[in-house]
Amino acid sequence: MKVNVMSDILKANDLLAQDIKEMLKKKQIVSWNIMGSPGSGKTSILERLIPMLPGDVKAAVIEGDLATSRDAERIAKTGVQSTQINTQGACHLDAAMVRTALEKIDLDDISILFIENVGNLICPAGFSLGETGRIIVSSITEGDDKPEKYPSMFKNAHVVLLNKIDLKSQTNFRIDNFTREMKKINPQADIMQISATNGSGFTELVNWVVGRLL
Amino acid sequence: MKVNVMSDILKANDLLAQDIKEMLKKKQIVSWNIMGSPGSGKTSILERLIPMLPGDVKAAVIEGDLATSRDAERIAKTGVQSTQINTQGACHLDAAMVRTALEKIDLDDISILFIENVGNLICPAGFSLGETGRIIVSSITEGDDKPEKYPSMFKNAHVVLLNKIDLKSQTNFRIDNFTREMKKINPQADIMQISATNGSGFTELVNWVVGRLL
Repeated sequence: MKVNVMSDILKANDLLAQDIKEMLKKKQIVSWNIMGSPGSGKTSILERLIPMLPGDVKAAVIEGDLATSRDAERIAKTGVQSTQINTQGACHLDAAMVRTALEKIDLDDISILFIENVGNLICPAGFSLGETGRIIVSSITEGDDKPEKYPSMFKNAHVVLLNKIDLKSQTNFRIDNFTREMKKINPQADIMQISATNGSGFTELVNWVVGRLL
Repeated sequence: MKVNVMSDILKANDLLAQDIKEMLKKKQIVSWNIMGSPGSGKTSILERLIPMLPGDVKAAVIEGDLATSRDAERIAKTGVQSTQINTQGACHLDAAMVRTALEKIDLDDISILFIENVGNLICPAGFSLGETGRIIVSSITEGDDKPEKYPSMFKNAHVVLLNKIDLKSQTNFRIDNFTREMKKINPQADIMQISATNGSGFTELVNWVVGRLL
């Protein structure tokens, strides 16, 4: 019985996510569901990435958090449309929340939508938001053993951003170990080494994002 | 309807947690529910802490993870009883899982039980495991804005371990900002600055743990 309720929720979410997907596609908007642990650097990456996009590539951001509107305020400073969702305890965004947030955004003005999910390496993986693809942020300081310990998150990633690469020499992180685990879990995913602190890897990241515009 | 199902689950969990609490108390075992983000350093802290406990203080550890038995294997090398729970997708431990794990542990041999929850700063907060108290691990590299962004986790902490203090000078972490947020969310909690990498703060941590034995 409990399982059926969960299954109904997921089915309803999938139907709504499909609507969002088709609507965004019609407007030629590519959308990225950005997921990762608390403090992995999701917002900091967007703060650095957005100002580096070509002038004709306009973005909007939906921010998901349990509480506070801080992340949306940080993003608004980059000059793009920024909308905060507070989940009030829920450990992930869902398609209904995103649909409501989309009503606040001028979609005719943008070609890319970033949806930063709640900081959580588990729950958000199970809920489609109608996104074009998934960007997983995994920071060096979290350790190189995360893909096999959190397989549901990593198995559907389009790209994994290994953030905080500037701190690597002060950790026991082994790039080859992380890469080996990703090969087992999800060999298709790109892996990029970046630092939102010093900007390393961001030229490559901008190219990756621009190369996937619709 | 969906809310009622959730409420029933929580009620059933609380009843079971109460049984565990009474059983552990009868055996004079103090138990700590250790929670924090993926990669915050929960297992590394236990690896360093357990060998520093006085010889007559015997511990056991229950490890919770979505997948793999790596953490329990790491802990077993310290010589204590170590039991792994794989939640198969669930984002937190619950009292039923802990009760099953307790059947594998010789409780007459121990005076302290560490339960390392699934790496997640949201879901585990809602489920009592019958623990004496809660230890929250929050690493410096995650940023100083976590208490207000994840209030449900921080509001019931007995102690917050600010781990990876050795990396502080390379981040923009402000201790006073973190402390100010904790004062709003949970003024009773102790805050300790530690590093599982270089051992700083561990003498104080051992004293804290030993001072709370039953």
